[in-house]
Amino acid sequence: MPQKIVKLSVQDVRFPTSLEQHGSDAMHTDPDYSVAYVVIETDGGTKGYGLTFTVGRGTEVVVCAVKALSGLLVGRTLEEIVADFRGFYRLLTSDSQMRWIGPEKGVIHLATAAVLNAVWDLWARVEGKPLWKLLVDMSPEQVVSCIDFRYITDALTEQEALDLLRKAKTGKAEREQQMLKEGYPAYTTSCAWLGYSDQQLTQLCTDALANGWSRFKVKVGADIEDDKRRCRLIRQMIGPDKIMMMDANQRWDVGEAVPWMTCLSPFRPLWIEEPTSPDDILGHCHNRVMFKQFLQASALQFVQIDSCRLGSVNENLAVLLMAHKFQVPVCPHAGGVGLCELVQHLILFDYISVSADLNNRMCEYVDHLHEHFTSPVVIRDAHYLPPKDPGYSCEMLQSSVETHRYPDGEVWLRLSADGPRPQ
Amino acid sequence: MPQKIVKLSVQDVRFPTSLEQHGSDAMHTDPDYSVAYVVIETDGGTKGYGLTFTVGRGTEVVVCAVKALSGLLVGRTLEEIVADFRGFYRLLTSDSQMRWIGPEKGVIHLATAAVLNAVWDLWARVEGKPLWKLLVDMSPEQVVSCIDFRYITDALTEQEALDLLRKAKTGKAEREQQMLKEGYPAYTTSCAWLGYSDQQLTQLCTDALANGWSRFKVKVGADIEDDKRRCRLIRQMIGPDKIMMMDANQRWDVGEAVPWMTCLSPFRPLWIEEPTSPDDILGHCHNRVMFKQFLQASALQFVQIDSCRLGSVNENLAVLLMAHKFQVPVCPHAGGVGLCELVQHLILFDYISVSADLNNRMCEYVDHLHEHFTSPVVIRDAHYLPPKDPGYSCEMLQSSVETHRYPDGEVWLRLSADGPRPQ
Repeated sequence: MPQKIVKLSVQDVRFPTSLEQHGSDAMHTDPDYSVAYVVIETDGGTKGYGLTFTVGRGTEVVVCAVKALSGLLVGRTLEEIVADFRGFYRLLTSDSQMRWIGPEKGVIHLATAAVLNAVWDLWARVEGKPLWKLLVDMSPEQVVSCIDFRYITDALTEQEALDLLRKAKTGKAEREQQMLKEGYPAYTTSCAWLGYSDQQLTQLCTDALANGWSRFKVKVGADIEDDKRRCRLIRQMIGPDKIMMMDANQRWDVGEAVPWMTCLSPFRPLWIEEPTSPDDILGHCHNRVMFKQFLQASALQFVQIDSCRLGSVNENLAVLLMAHKFQVPVCPHAGGVGLCELVQHLILFDYISVSADLNNRMCEYVDHLHEHFTSPVVIRDAHYLPPKDPGYSCEMLQSSVETHRYPDGEVWLRLSADGPRPQ
Repeated sequence: MPQKIVKLSVQDVRFPTSLEQHGSDAMHTDPDYSVAYVVIETDGGTKGYGLTFTVGRGTEVVVCAVKALSGLLVGRTLEEIVADFRGFYRLLTSDSQMRWIGPEKGVIHLATAAVLNAVWDLWARVEGKPLWKLLVDMSPEQVVSCIDFRYITDALTEQEALDLLRKAKTGKAEREQQMLKEGYPAYTTSCAWLGYSDQQLTQLCTDALANGWSRFKVKVGADIEDDKRRCRLIRQMIGPDKIMMMDANQRWDVGEAVPWMTCLSPFRPLWIEEPTSPDDILGHCHNRVMFKQFLQASALQFVQIDSCRLGSVNENLAVLLMAHKFQVPVCPHAGGVGLCELVQHLILFDYISVSADLNNRMCEYVDHLHEHFTSPVVIRDAHYLPPKDPGYSCEMLQSSVETHRYPDGEVWLRLSADGPRPQ
């Protein structure tokens, strides 16, 4: 029986994280971690759940964009979508009128990710598999049929992608077993948000060390003296052998980034993340065309994919394959709301079916808001354990959605009754 | 008396241009030329008008984004905004939560342009000058104080910008007189939209030649045989000495673009516009950081600024100055709804106060929808004549706004009564 998608609903769900400075960095000083949360439903009553991550104000704009896209989805069957997933991806990203307000960037691309994430979740549920396993069990031809190669054929052709996937078949079963047993290595960003006091930072770092963490990311970029003090503190606590990364969240001009990082180099960061504009060298690449150029220019040493800023699984597959071709390790972004839940599937697929390599690779982890999901991530000894429930792990608890819906959920009604919040 | 902005309203206004294939190209096969139309009002009752251009579906998302930004504007005085226009630009583009859904790209940047265009219009009206004259009369220090140099100081510093503007003072008065007398050279895109028949194309080209046009842009990219036939036809009609440009509107991969253009090279195009992804080499740059890189990489030979995709006058000033530093001629995008009305101000400023050069320079012109504006462009002998009315020339007739408002304007009610339109 074909599953016809008959309904799409989308909600603006926000968590008031700015009250305690969780997630604060040099550019996002007061984030309220939020999602545009999508639920699709088939005529058979099966549901698929998807989301994209935002940081508060503006989520309503993404919600509006999801509604604008919904007409392209509702009325189609899951079977016809996945039979030509490349075509469906292009339908969403290249609608002859809507592409003007992107294309494949900003609000409309975030909305595309939320919608497609829900479709992938639905597909995995119908197949009764967690998403990573659905991907791992696909033939190279099936994987490649999900990718839109428009604008990247000068870096990676369909044939090359097939060859890479076929070559990686060797040892696949063993790698899957290894992942089920050991999990995928993670690093933590939970200890050193910019708005945390030194005392908070010390406490969190102590706890993390006790829990087996050995890789830590620190937010930097607002004040050089602060940065030096915080980085020194962390390096002293973790010792010389553990790994430290830094993240400036787009704060600097090119001319500022170099001397600033020279000052911080004694603390031996493995990488500096987003030193400048996301449209410049390095940075938060928003689509496969940006990643392609950075790879071609050897302008990045770590590829940080994002499950919600790229166009869902489809576009992430393209980037994973390009990264493998250019032999650059992938270390996914995560955190926020649901990003850990989503991206673990992609990095498991990458290891098992594409890169077959764990050198210099790790997946970001942030210990926030997992309690709102029906299948939250499981971390053991600083590793992500492969999810077992069918789907893409981003179904939220109905009660969490209702309480945090903006602006009429209980949490927000109570906060607004307390008076206006500082901007 | 300070002018406090007390109100912002925004409307979704669409023209059903797809019915007659006006504006059609290889990627936008059925555009309904549209605007998110912004009106701001001060407590003294003065109004400012701004817009950003879109092509139909999705305009409601930009409208939603304008509403999200309005809280940053309403309640401020025009005086405090223009006293620190750089700061206000950054407030809009770097709001610590909303920047996540951009930054400075896609929906939120289009919305930023619409809002800032209205502020500039208001300022020019309060000063009783057309916008180009307001700009031309500014001191170099004032011009530079409107520009956010974040992320571009490696290509252009504030001091360099000041030096360029000071150097260009020589001959400024003469150039202003010249513009008032002769106008700024234009080229036409009205003859050769992709959806037009050969007969339509021949007729329009004949008329354009009779009206003194000597520079023509042709849409290409969907079918090579069609392209050859259409380009041959136009080259035959205009003769060997007149100028032809081509525009593929992002249709090709890099590997397709080269052989395709080799086939069309016998027709001697001056440029090929948007051969591939807007995030790749060349293309519709969406902010100053993209333009900076293309200039640094010598990857474009003509800078095509856009009055509605860049962050209004402020960001266009940055790009004009960078283009001048890198000695690349500026040939603005126009057409759509209101783009000609807006961009003429910027290119007049560029000639009078920055580049002082007309070599290889011309401003696009498309003969559509000007009748909906209170101060439409005036073209004489294929030149833009400088506007004389105060403001930024994008106030629309109230009757046009009401009739074309989507979905409840008379035009759209009538069309929907006629039954569903082909997608």
